[in-house]
Amino acid sequence: MMKAYSAMTRDELKAARDQELKAYDQLKAKGLKLDMSRGKPGAEQLDLVIGLQSVIQTNEDCFDGSLDCRNYGTPMGIPSCRQLWADLLGVRVEQVMVGGNASLNLMYDTIARAYTHGLLHSDKPWCKLDKVKWLCPVPGYDRHFFVTESFGFEMIPVPMDDNGPDMDLVEELIRDEAVKGIWCVPKYSNPTGCIYSDEVVNRLAAMKPAAKDFLIMWDNAYCIHEFEGDFVPFPDILSLCEKYGNPDMVVEFASTSKVTLPGAGVACMATSEANMKYFMKLMGFQTIGYDKMNQLRHVRFLKDKEHTLALMKRHAAVLAPKFQAVVDGLEREIGPLGFASWSHPKGGYFVSLEVMPGTAKRTVELCKEAGVVMTPAGNPFPYGKDPKDSNIRIAPSLPPKEELEAAVEVLCVCAKLAALEKLLAE
Amino acid sequence: MMKAYSAMTRDELKAARDQELKAYDQLKAKGLKLDMSRGKPGAEQLDLVIGLQSVIQTNEDCFDGSLDCRNYGTPMGIPSCRQLWADLLGVRVEQVMVGGNASLNLMYDTIARAYTHGLLHSDKPWCKLDKVKWLCPVPGYDRHFFVTESFGFEMIPVPMDDNGPDMDLVEELIRDEAVKGIWCVPKYSNPTGCIYSDEVVNRLAAMKPAAKDFLIMWDNAYCIHEFEGDFVPFPDILSLCEKYGNPDMVVEFASTSKVTLPGAGVACMATSEANMKYFMKLMGFQTIGYDKMNQLRHVRFLKDKEHTLALMKRHAAVLAPKFQAVVDGLEREIGPLGFASWSHPKGGYFVSLEVMPGTAKRTVELCKEAGVVMTPAGNPFPYGKDPKDSNIRIAPSLPPKEELEAAVEVLCVCAKLAALEKLLAE
Repeated sequence: MMKAYSAMTRDELKAARDQELKAYDQLKAKGLKLDMSRGKPGAEQLDLVIGLQSVIQTNEDCFDGSLDCRNYGTPMGIPSCRQLWADLLGVRVEQVMVGGNASLNLMYDTIARAYTHGLLHSDKPWCKLDKVKWLCPVPGYDRHFFVTESFGFEMIPVPMDDNGPDMDLVEELIRDEAVKGIWCVPKYSNPTGCIYSDEVVNRLAAMKPAAKDFLIMWDNAYCIHEFEGDFVPFPDILSLCEKYGNPDMVVEFASTSKVTLPGAGVACMATSEANMKYFMKLMGFQTIGYDKMNQLRHVRFLKDKEHTLALMKRHAAVLAPKFQAVVDGLEREIGPLGFASWSHPKGGYFVSLEVMPGTAKRTVELCKEAGVVMTPAGNPFPYGKDPKDSNIRIAPSLPPKEELEAAVEVLCVCAKLAALEKLLAE
Repeated sequence: MMKAYSAMTRDELKAARDQELKAYDQLKAKGLKLDMSRGKPGAEQLDLVIGLQSVIQTNEDCFDGSLDCRNYGTPMGIPSCRQLWADLLGVRVEQVMVGGNASLNLMYDTIARAYTHGLLHSDKPWCKLDKVKWLCPVPGYDRHFFVTESFGFEMIPVPMDDNGPDMDLVEELIRDEAVKGIWCVPKYSNPTGCIYSDEVVNRLAAMKPAAKDFLIMWDNAYCIHEFEGDFVPFPDILSLCEKYGNPDMVVEFASTSKVTLPGAGVACMATSEANMKYFMKLMGFQTIGYDKMNQLRHVRFLKDKEHTLALMKRHAAVLAPKFQAVVDGLEREIGPLGFASWSHPKGGYFVSLEVMPGTAKRTVELCKEAGVVMTPAGNPFPYGKDPKDSNIRIAPSLPPKEELEAAVEVLCVCAKLAALEKLLAE
């Protein structure tokens, strides 16, 4: 039976520290090389979709109805792939365009277009404004924050709880006309794994921001990514925004990066038809069309929503034991010690760990020295600054299960050591 | 024996006009639906590369050396594909990154980055400047001009001759610090088909523009696209710029859009290592990596430079008769009439036709009414304004040969009719 650190005497803490140091040195001596830093699918998942590579074989296979997918054109994407995405997201096909291999690219380009040309309801391009502010629910996705940081937006953190971002604060902040948008990962949020509640989703859709060109960047990255239980239906933000009189306030993004292949999937964007018309005009300067052959390959392989959800069950069968191993490891190794807590997601790609405040950076540093790469501490916050220095994002998908167990063991020892160092330094 | 229009009396012109009107009405009555508007490969060319679709079949096939091309990462592109492009362009592999399916996208993004973040040697992003001017050799590629127009650059036309842009004028114009760059299609230029002379290429590389962040956008779209004769070696602009002390002044672009598939090829960008480092840092905000599976598919299919050039010979065998049909048709139908001239390219995708000044728009309009779609007259000029209203771009690649012959017949009748209308209105 382990004793919580808070209940230990200084001598007990010292003894615990010495014990963890010994364990740490032993682990370090193993010369491990493990990676829990990014949400990359593992080899077993990639192997699941090898069929994707051979669904197109003949010249006749290259047509989507009468459309020759090999040639230039059709910047909105091929009809069948737009339909598949419309079905997966629960939107209308007219609201969907299918792009290249990365939703991040579509997201960056959307922000870039707002910056260079403005949005549908902008008075001028955002680059002509003195100040653009942006709401960042935290902890959140580091690559989102890198995009808005790169354009010089002032990022304002908004705390998240199990229901999503703090809507009282959001509703207060959007009264500032300089606040132009918000990042959202509404389902199995990166990294906490929470699903935005119906109330949060409705309040977001019903917002009346001072900025008439306010934009919700709705990154539905994990829209069908349950690893525990069946597919969970989720409200369609597009029709909700429409219902509340804000039809052009949101752009939704998704991709098959974690359905088929991370580097070679298809990404999509869904928004009001008015927005779409505006974006497609600007997109017409940038490209003659995205890779339609890969779109076709995907439709032939994924077939329809039902068949796609069946594939997700096969991914789940690979992922669930990995997430279980993380949660079990944390529970066993540090649960009783009372200084840490973590999320218990049922989908998505991350476990969000809260270690003792002031020790996240140190924990990640100790991990690195012992050969375990974690996402840099602070990354889930704008400018990489976690005010409490307590959040660590765990990405269990890439390592095989045995490696993952070893990595979690290292992480736990490092979290304990960092906590003990801090307690003893006080 | 036809008589030149300039040698005809007014009555003869009237008789000719009546005859062409009759011919035009007959053609119109056929209800044709033909397209010579864009440089799209025809079905026969697309069929040549069906092997591309089945070169990857097994999980083991998905590796480029030890790199798993299915997963995230490697934003510079896979090593073997970068090497192939380095060989094709005659540059070093360190200078090459391979992107997605469209070089236009890479070009737009390069200009966009200059606008939003600035180039390596910029004092500030171009969006923070009062004025950006840009040199546009004319006639040129309409999509280039659309990009620079969309960012509000002031485009300055620079006349082209058989050796490339007028370098005396270019050297004069770059003394203005607001002039930030130039578009170039150096080999089989779009649409004139000329190859920049060694003198022009050297003078471009040796320029000393007032703007220290001046950029040559070197769109080598037709780098291996001979349809008559063998591959013509072409100077490497990167090493020439380096030689003249301007290593960071140029970015080169190319793609397999007209080697494999127009919508599903791979595009690349080549530039100095200093530029590349700068661009990759910014690109890191936009994407985790381009589609490496398609890059791998291309390397497996194209193999190497020699094998790629052999494929280009097969494209040439399809294209050469089409270009011949255009040139023969023009020679036969309007050559003796003395009011028009046209290019005789040995590579690339276009024939550039000069009709009687003041009649290009009318000619294209007449074509459209008779069911033949041409690139809008004026498009090869900034803002769509051909000052002489005489240039028409002919794209012979898409229609099958019989359709092409019919389309050229229509074009010739329309050009004659427009010329006669003009002569009779004077």
